Amino acid sequence: MAARSLIGIDLGATKIYATLLDGREVVAETKAKTPVRGGPLAVVEALRRAVEALGAPRKARLVGLGVPGAVDADGATVRSAPNLAGWVGPFDMGGALSDALEGRTVVVENDVNVGVYAEHALGVAHGAPDVLGVFVGTGVGGGLILDGALRRGPTGMAAEIGHVVVRPEGRACRCGGRGHVEAYAGRAAMERRARTLESRGRDTVLVDLAPARRMTSSVFARALAANDALAAELIEDAVAALGLAIAGAVTLLDLPLVVVGGGLADRLGADFVGRVEAVVRERVYRDSPVQVSPTALGDRGGAIGAALIAERRAS
Amino acid sequence: MAARSLIGIDLGATKIYATLLDGREVVAETKAKTPVRGGPLAVVEALRRAVEALGAPRKARLVGLGVPGAVDADGATVRSAPNLAGWVGPFDMGGALSDALEGRTVVVENDVNVGVYAEHALGVAHGAPDVLGVFVGTGVGGGLILDGALRRGPTGMAAEIGHVVVRPEGRACRCGGRGHVEAYAGRAAMERRARTLESRGRDTVLVDLAPARRMTSSVFARALAANDALAAELIEDAVAALGLAIAGAVTLLDLPLVVVGGGLADRLGADFVGRVEAVVRERVYRDSPVQVSPTALGDRGGAIGAALIAERRAS
Repeated sequence: MAARSLIGIDLGATKIYATLLDGREVVAETKAKTPVRGGPLAVVEALRRAVEALGAPRKARLVGLGVPGAVDADGATVRSAPNLAGWVGPFDMGGALSDALEGRTVVVENDVNVGVYAEHALGVAHGAPDVLGVFVGTGVGGGLILDGALRRGPTGMAAEIGHVVVRPEGRACRCGGRGHVEAYAGRAAMERRARTLESRGRDTVLVDLAPARRMTSSVFARALAANDALAAELIEDAVAALGLAIAGAVTLLDLPLVVVGGGLADRLGADFVGRVEAVVRERVYRDSPVQVSPTALGDRGGAIGAALIAERRAS
Repeated sequence: MAARSLIGIDLGATKIYATLLDGREVVAETKAKTPVRGGPLAVVEALRRAVEALGAPRKARLVGLGVPGAVDADGATVRSAPNLAGWVGPFDMGGALSDALEGRTVVVENDVNVGVYAEHALGVAHGAPDVLGVFVGTGVGGGLILDGALRRGPTGMAAEIGHVVVRPEGRACRCGGRGHVEAYAGRAAMERRARTLESRGRDTVLVDLAPARRMTSSVFARALAANDALAAELIEDAVAALGLAIAGAVTLLDLPLVVVGGGLADRLGADFVGRVEAVVRERVYRDSPVQVSPTALGDRGGAIGAALIAERRAS
């Protein structure tokens, strides 16, 4: 079979990244901002323009889309997407985007699932039977491949490692739970905690570096480089929470490999992932041979994985 | 196919339970004590006698054996069995028992795996695609069926939910870890804690009921019935630890069903399992429809599951 032309798109809360694949090779890519007004229809229009900007040939009939939300098993309906502005209730994203793209076949999947799928197909988890992907960004998401297949679970909610409890009496999570991984390792939760502690008199450069703007992963990296004690403490808590939850998953599933990616992990690099690995090794049952690794594909993984899942589903 | 005659044996740390199945029906059963001297060879002889006592016909050529230890994927080698006296290093249990039983085919599996397999085949998890079994006895073991198949994992150590961390700075576990479920919910750990606290002056009937003997599940049940505050506290801690770890597993795997069995859970009954379920529902991510249920087969499940796994493997 000749290599197929595939379109892969990663729809994030703040940006859209679209790619054109020829077989396994990226031959074009483009970026755009995610619309903050206009809800799902404005997003569809932005996605249409991104595909147009790719200069995708007519023969590229397959489009994979990763979205930050819960996607039904039909590969089309986005049930909820709390991080996308104006998104209320389920939306037939697959149908709407297919209509906007001249009837191309569109396959929609959760953004973390496409990321781990890409690492399994082409990245650091290539050839591994099982892999847990943990993506540390605004929140903390997870994707799980067991015996080569994505585990979605009966309700499609599998692998939500960000909402596993690591400290029973711990910090409140945005979802309403307590002591969840995301309450320690999600960038948004770390930002809230930094601002709260600063307002109570704690000295930190974090708020100086991001007085009104979002406290990005780069802000945390710069504060660490400046030996900011609060930044170091927040990262330490994040490492511990991630390590504990990952160790639990490894003990439960006997996983050989965990991949840690996402904006914060990518920005802080191998040192951060290495520290998570050290906690996992300390906390996992007996002498598990588990390895914890950074991603190989970085922030391109989502779009690539979306394209590959579309190809797999359509074949 | 005519219903097959199968032999199933549950080898426990203290007793042996053997059963003869005709198809799915138990037609004979027998019990014996597990030898505490003589190591693996004495155990093989005790198992041979138990099969003899069953009056198993010659045509019963298949024997399934559940053992409290780590079993290799070959279904024969017991790699380690820390709860069996005098058991050091790997032992070819399948080969030795087959020789003792006139060349019958023997399939060996972990005791918790056979228990959850039985509940899935004939018990409360019949028809469920996925089920986690948690067995609360001397220790806390787990067995996991995903998409209808037992998950063993690459090193055969999957489903060790007893050694998942629920309290990072919590009680020491016998395995060397800290804050593990088993350190709160295993009967042996509860007994150690009761004796320690009593020796420090804490008032409790637990030690009066078992001054020198093992503090059995019945002792805990009687102390609870007598409104013993320490017993209530230990059970409360066990319920919380089990609920937290199970909630984490459900969040990670999107499980529809968890079965809680084993000596302590069976003895304390539906009230105990119901309390575990309440913690799971409080701690699981969002509104998971998970159900937590007692076993249907009780302490017969292990032997029945061992027989059925032997049949499955041999077919």
